[in-house]
Amino acid sequence: MTATPTTVTPIRVIDVIRKKRDGRELSRAEIEALVGGYTRGEIPDYQASAWLMATLLKGMTRGETAILTDTMLRSGEVLDFSDLPSQKIDKHSTGGVGDKTSLVLAPVAAAGGLTVPMISGRGLGHTGGTLDKLESIPGFNVNLPVARFRKVLETCGCAMIGQTAEIAPADRKLYALRDVTGTVESPFLICASIMSKKLAEGIDGLVLDVKTGSGAFMKKEEDAAYLAELMVETGERMGKKMAALLTDMDQPLGCHVGNALEVVEVLDVLRGKGPEDLRELCHELAGWMFLLGDRVATVEAGKQLSKELIDSGKALQKFREMVELQDGDARVVDDPRRLPEAQHKADVVSPQGGYITAIQCEQAGTACVIIGGGRERKEDSVDPAVGFVLHKKVGDPVSAGEPLCSVHYNSEARGARARTLLQESYRIGDTPPANLRPLVHRVITKSGEKN
Amino acid sequence: MTATPTTVTPIRVIDVIRKKRDGRELSRAEIEALVGGYTRGEIPDYQASAWLMATLLKGMTRGETAILTDTMLRSGEVLDFSDLPSQKIDKHSTGGVGDKTSLVLAPVAAAGGLTVPMISGRGLGHTGGTLDKLESIPGFNVNLPVARFRKVLETCGCAMIGQTAEIAPADRKLYALRDVTGTVESPFLICASIMSKKLAEGIDGLVLDVKTGSGAFMKKEEDAAYLAELMVETGERMGKKMAALLTDMDQPLGCHVGNALEVVEVLDVLRGKGPEDLRELCHELAGWMFLLGDRVATVEAGKQLSKELIDSGKALQKFREMVELQDGDARVVDDPRRLPEAQHKADVVSPQGGYITAIQCEQAGTACVIIGGGRERKEDSVDPAVGFVLHKKVGDPVSAGEPLCSVHYNSEARGARARTLLQESYRIGDTPPANLRPLVHRVITKSGEKN
Repeated sequence: MTATPTTVTPIRVIDVIRKKRDGRELSRAEIEALVGGYTRGEIPDYQASAWLMATLLKGMTRGETAILTDTMLRSGEVLDFSDLPSQKIDKHSTGGVGDKTSLVLAPVAAAGGLTVPMISGRGLGHTGGTLDKLESIPGFNVNLPVARFRKVLETCGCAMIGQTAEIAPADRKLYALRDVTGTVESPFLICASIMSKKLAEGIDGLVLDVKTGSGAFMKKEEDAAYLAELMVETGERMGKKMAALLTDMDQPLGCHVGNALEVVEVLDVLRGKGPEDLRELCHELAGWMFLLGDRVATVEAGKQLSKELIDSGKALQKFREMVELQDGDARVVDDPRRLPEAQHKADVVSPQGGYITAIQCEQAGTACVIIGGGRERKEDSVDPAVGFVLHKKVGDPVSAGEPLCSVHYNSEARGARARTLLQESYRIGDTPPANLRPLVHRVITKSGEKN
Repeated sequence: MTATPTTVTPIRVIDVIRKKRDGRELSRAEIEALVGGYTRGEIPDYQASAWLMATLLKGMTRGETAILTDTMLRSGEVLDFSDLPSQKIDKHSTGGVGDKTSLVLAPVAAAGGLTVPMISGRGLGHTGGTLDKLESIPGFNVNLPVARFRKVLETCGCAMIGQTAEIAPADRKLYALRDVTGTVESPFLICASIMSKKLAEGIDGLVLDVKTGSGAFMKKEEDAAYLAELMVETGERMGKKMAALLTDMDQPLGCHVGNALEVVEVLDVLRGKGPEDLRELCHELAGWMFLLGDRVATVEAGKQLSKELIDSGKALQKFREMVELQDGDARVVDDPRRLPEAQHKADVVSPQGGYITAIQCEQAGTACVIIGGGRERKEDSVDPAVGFVLHKKVGDPVSAGEPLCSVHYNSEARGARARTLLQESYRIGDTPPANLRPLVHRVITKSGEKN
């Protein structure tokens, strides 16, 4: 237990727990005593978990959320790239199925003059992870020490690594406890967890891609909007430029799901090809990154810049540079067949004619986990080669016997289970779905909501 | 983690925590998995504390409360006195200042033909404890093994001991965790804690004395009434005859506070003397014990029986027998000066004339702790000799300079602090208080409220 200089008597943890239990607002000194003390091992797990449950059920004010974020941020190393002249802007997604925009956005933003110091995570459950996708490129090293991370940033403007032990240790310890005590699902704790890690990157601004729909962590739009608004306000209270896009995750994003398969689709997009939904979302997010980074005056101009950087091949060139600088085999850029490929491919065909009315997105993500492309538990390894390619998406017409998707797999038994699950995840009706969900549901910035 | 015969898949503790967090009702198998698993050391403290906080904030149904009580009860030994022919009836108080009714009631009830297998606790904080009071009698042994406890019961009808390691180990473990995680103040958890220990005595019925007022654990009457009603229903669901009296603890009960001093007052009451409030409450509680134990047809008849047993000297004789059977020096009964006496006595005098309008009861109890008559922490020892005697109670007239109370102490410094605190706890006004609080606020039984 610690006393801070502003308090006369030492803070008792039991009193902090009781105060939150009774729905009252904690002071900075109280939050620091609890979170700091827990990170230093002075406060036992059972007191931290009682506080976590009280926080989940009683909530936090915006002030408390910012203080918690700040306390967790300052529990470890905070990177400092203030000597780099350009604006440091990152993007963070709350996760989904087929969400590979980070791999497009980092080189696009860097090609447009921003610095993107991106620290990402691995896939867990039905959602994929950026690090797993990058590691499907032979040799690609996501474990750069800070000095090399800085060197790559200075050289090409973007670098993509995993979390280091030095960044936000409070979050690592608290997250492990939340995971086993039913206290993951608090927007305040989620906000502090995400924002403490992202702000440790030493960025000037952050674009949030908050997913909503059947494949998202936050299934309900109002929950996603609440979290988005909370993160925007928290970031702004900490002096960062913020914008959040609420985007659709009611079906997989793009057509490729699985690590190497998603890199193939990223390369398509960087060549100006690939599926329209993925291309559009990348331009939207890049537009906001350029706006926050003062490269353009409007989002529309930012989207235009993004398109130009792709059409000119500059973004693809940045990607190639980054892969080389991070020890990856850059020949994959021009020859995607150098990426790992699964031994078997099999189509899932439509049992009837009609229209695709829905694709159960979490179920589709789980199919990828079953064939080894994702993780059920943190300690599992992933197979970079497996996954699936969607030939039909929501709204598309289909004939009986026509392929819905192709599954790429290495184990017959698992492949069969994945095919069944994918078959079940498709909903086919006689008429097209009445209302197709928009890709970007809404945008949340400090100036309020925009569309 | 355990699976019970009624479930097909094993119960996951994380799911039980989440279910309670979301305000849903737990099944018997789920409660048993959590509480049983925790008691057996299979579930870590941090999961139990998350569940405790969720329970405190989301509550429990009556069914869950009974199941939790039953699970905690069955975590250890349940005494069986079913071979003793008379009804086994006990009384439990939620605790207060100067509350020594147990020492009167056990011999009165035994003299009236009931069996009273009373397992009591020690004082903590501003409230006193029955065991500490009994131990002020030289030689009195509150740590009888179960075989001797039974022998005393068979011989004289009442016995008073402390909790054994075998009784309700789940409660001991959960209470220690509640104490450090801000989860003490849940009526559901309090109910299960009290009732699991009391029902382990193998009783047929229980009279609850639920205190309310400035010296009670539950300061607000509605909180006390809620707890009382919860305990009555829980006991009845478990097949016990129950009654709860909501009684006043807005000033100390009787005039003596402190361990040996309270024994002196108990002996006064057993001789038909002593302060009226204490005598009246003892008769009320004894009346209900006799009613639950089928010795009388009405509470009034039970109160009358209680008075007769005191007037005839039979209750005092039972007390003497019990003291002897539990290795105490029974000579104290006729010569209370054999009890420990403090070295110093000093009066607290009234600074003004008028009427006593209030005595801050928790503050008065704290004065007794300061001079060593109670405990701040569980591991503290108590001084049996110290305490205070009230000469004025609420409603009494007083002149300037007249003694309000006398403090009995062994340390000058502590005695001075206690005198100051007692002085401050008295409120004196120019006119008598408008409404004196009744001693018994209300009675709660299965047939609803009575007065």
